[in-house]
Amino acid sequence: MLARALKKVVPFTATTTSLHVLTNVFIQFLPDIIKLRATNLDEHISEVLNTTGEWEATLLISAKRLFDVVRELPAGDVTLSVDADHLKINSGNGFSCSIAGISTEYESDFPMPPEIGDSVVVVQNSVLDRLARIGGYAVSNDQARAVLQGAYFQFFGDSVTVASTDGHRLAEVKGVLFQNEEPDPLKLVIPPSAILKHLNASDLNGKTFIAVGEGFVSFQSDTTRTYAKLIDGPYPDYEKVIPDTIKRAAIVSKNELSEALRRSSVVANQKTQLTVLEFDSLTGIKVSVNNREVGSTMDQTVDAEYTGEDGFRIGFNAKLFIELLSKVSSDRIRIGITSTIGASLITPIGEDVPEERFILMPLRILDAEED
Amino acid sequence: MLARALKKVVPFTATTTSLHVLTNVFIQFLPDIIKLRATNLDEHISEVLNTTGEWEATLLISAKRLFDVVRELPAGDVTLSVDADHLKINSGNGFSCSIAGISTEYESDFPMPPEIGDSVVVVQNSVLDRLARIGGYAVSNDQARAVLQGAYFQFFGDSVTVASTDGHRLAEVKGVLFQNEEPDPLKLVIPPSAILKHLNASDLNGKTFIAVGEGFVSFQSDTTRTYAKLIDGPYPDYEKVIPDTIKRAAIVSKNELSEALRRSSVVANQKTQLTVLEFDSLTGIKVSVNNREVGSTMDQTVDAEYTGEDGFRIGFNAKLFIELLSKVSSDRIRIGITSTIGASLITPIGEDVPEERFILMPLRILDAEED
Repeated sequence: MLARALKKVVPFTATTTSLHVLTNVFIQFLPDIIKLRATNLDEHISEVLNTTGEWEATLLISAKRLFDVVRELPAGDVTLSVDADHLKINSGNGFSCSIAGISTEYESDFPMPPEIGDSVVVVQNSVLDRLARIGGYAVSNDQARAVLQGAYFQFFGDSVTVASTDGHRLAEVKGVLFQNEEPDPLKLVIPPSAILKHLNASDLNGKTFIAVGEGFVSFQSDTTRTYAKLIDGPYPDYEKVIPDTIKRAAIVSKNELSEALRRSSVVANQKTQLTVLEFDSLTGIKVSVNNREVGSTMDQTVDAEYTGEDGFRIGFNAKLFIELLSKVSSDRIRIGITSTIGASLITPIGEDVPEERFILMPLRILDAEED
Repeated sequence: MLARALKKVVPFTATTTSLHVLTNVFIQFLPDIIKLRATNLDEHISEVLNTTGEWEATLLISAKRLFDVVRELPAGDVTLSVDADHLKINSGNGFSCSIAGISTEYESDFPMPPEIGDSVVVVQNSVLDRLARIGGYAVSNDQARAVLQGAYFQFFGDSVTVASTDGHRLAEVKGVLFQNEEPDPLKLVIPPSAILKHLNASDLNGKTFIAVGEGFVSFQSDTTRTYAKLIDGPYPDYEKVIPDTIKRAAIVSKNELSEALRRSSVVANQKTQLTVLEFDSLTGIKVSVNNREVGSTMDQTVDAEYTGEDGFRIGFNAKLFIELLSKVSSDRIRIGITSTIGASLITPIGEDVPEERFILMPLRILDAEED
């Protein structure tokens, strides 16, 4: 149980930092409870363990050193005690150890998370996982546009919409909330990685209670509470990128298209990944690459139901397309195309498919690369 | 089948090299046969594929580019053809590609393995695997003593002895040969990694035919033949390191000792890994660490049958000891100790245990680190 708790807490410590204290776990022994805390300043975690014990003590202890010892502990119960600035661990079968830490009396020795009030939104963990993983997959790495590094959560009524984009692609998914006590729309920009870290420390069958405070959001599931820094908004009006007039549409098997793109990806220019899709209402989609740099070509025809002018050609980054396809929930998908330079819209097809939309920007087919 | 053949061949290409030709696969199309070759100069492989076809052609083609395409090929048969310097691959379901290579008429464009005569020794692959993996595990990385980078194979009669050592530890295992046509003792120093690479390209239920030529040894299994550079001997007389007078001996469970050492390893000085074993005929072995640098200690007692003076203490590198224990074939093992500075001898215990001996040199217990 101690090992499981530490496994949750350790990812929240800072590994390379000028603030040495952040490499520690803050352990508070209270009557019948042990509280573990860790933080890298952007994220915090506090984990509560039920124990039997009457004494009180507070220790800072190297997370790595403690975790290395704890994960090699013999199976079964262990006895913990604090002797000055040492944590002692004993187990029934001849094992004992003593790990040096720093004894502390004040919480002020360790950065504490901000005070955050009661939760306003409750989400099933399986729903929250999908929102962060699919809705947040298109976040940007661009330091210059910090807001795009987060996923845009819009909570309202019993539903939530999550979107992310890096300018080349966009994802938007909707989910149903378990509970929402906030009457007004609540809009938050949250790094999806923080949510996935919380869920990694939680039971996927449980629920997450979300609360918002000054610049931070907190997630609570059972004995685990994590805190993540919110990213300052406003988030750009991404909906204007989503095309409303689709001139050409193809319905195709996600896996067949993905396989063809995997074959084109290995032949394509490794940097641009330029792959051409050529549409025909009779034969389907011809996926092809003409990589003049290395003198290789490939083509693969994939069955599709296409409506639009025959012979229409459009270029895409094969790797980005493959990654996008891996996020779509259904086996058959619809590709809606506006023009060779406008955003293409990819959506799932079928009964009971979840509400989700994906955008991929095309690549220009340069004569020098492709003819 | 093409993918499986390439998977065997690709590890033998050079990845970073000034000789660009070594990043290629040499493909020879002959009537009803395709021959694939690759080499990094120290090792060669040739692989034969049976096909149907009457034409002859020879191509050099980038191993990475070809393998990337081939492993994404649709399931089922493919048709290969050569058009000038391009390899064309077609499959039944709408896929075709053309990969640029370099057409060549002469074998001299690609480094060929040396001529090596008929095999003299035949070994079951499962036996050869054990010889290389266990007998060769203690090879040195020291560039200054190249001979220790190889495992020392001594073939004689129907048996083979394999040893390796880096000065801190030593392994020696014996095995039975399937066939040996060489009447005299045959002594070879072979990098165990070359043998494991050959076995990776072979069926573990098969046999390997070993032949020796000028500075090279070759291994043949079915359609696969590999060649490895021999390391110049003579190999040092390692047997003089193996102690013949054992003053103290303990019999202990390999797994229990290994678990105790894993616990000591995490508390021990990360560089020296110094761990103390203290022997007692009543209580067994106390494995302990006093790491003054970080102020942590641990001890764990392990049951053992010990004969020798009580309270005898000896230091070892915990990580080297754990790795050694993972090589020993039996559950219960015998540790024979000469002195606090002489080699310790670890051997398997039980009926039908294979013939194997392991040496570990102790570490000095310095007063500054341990008391």
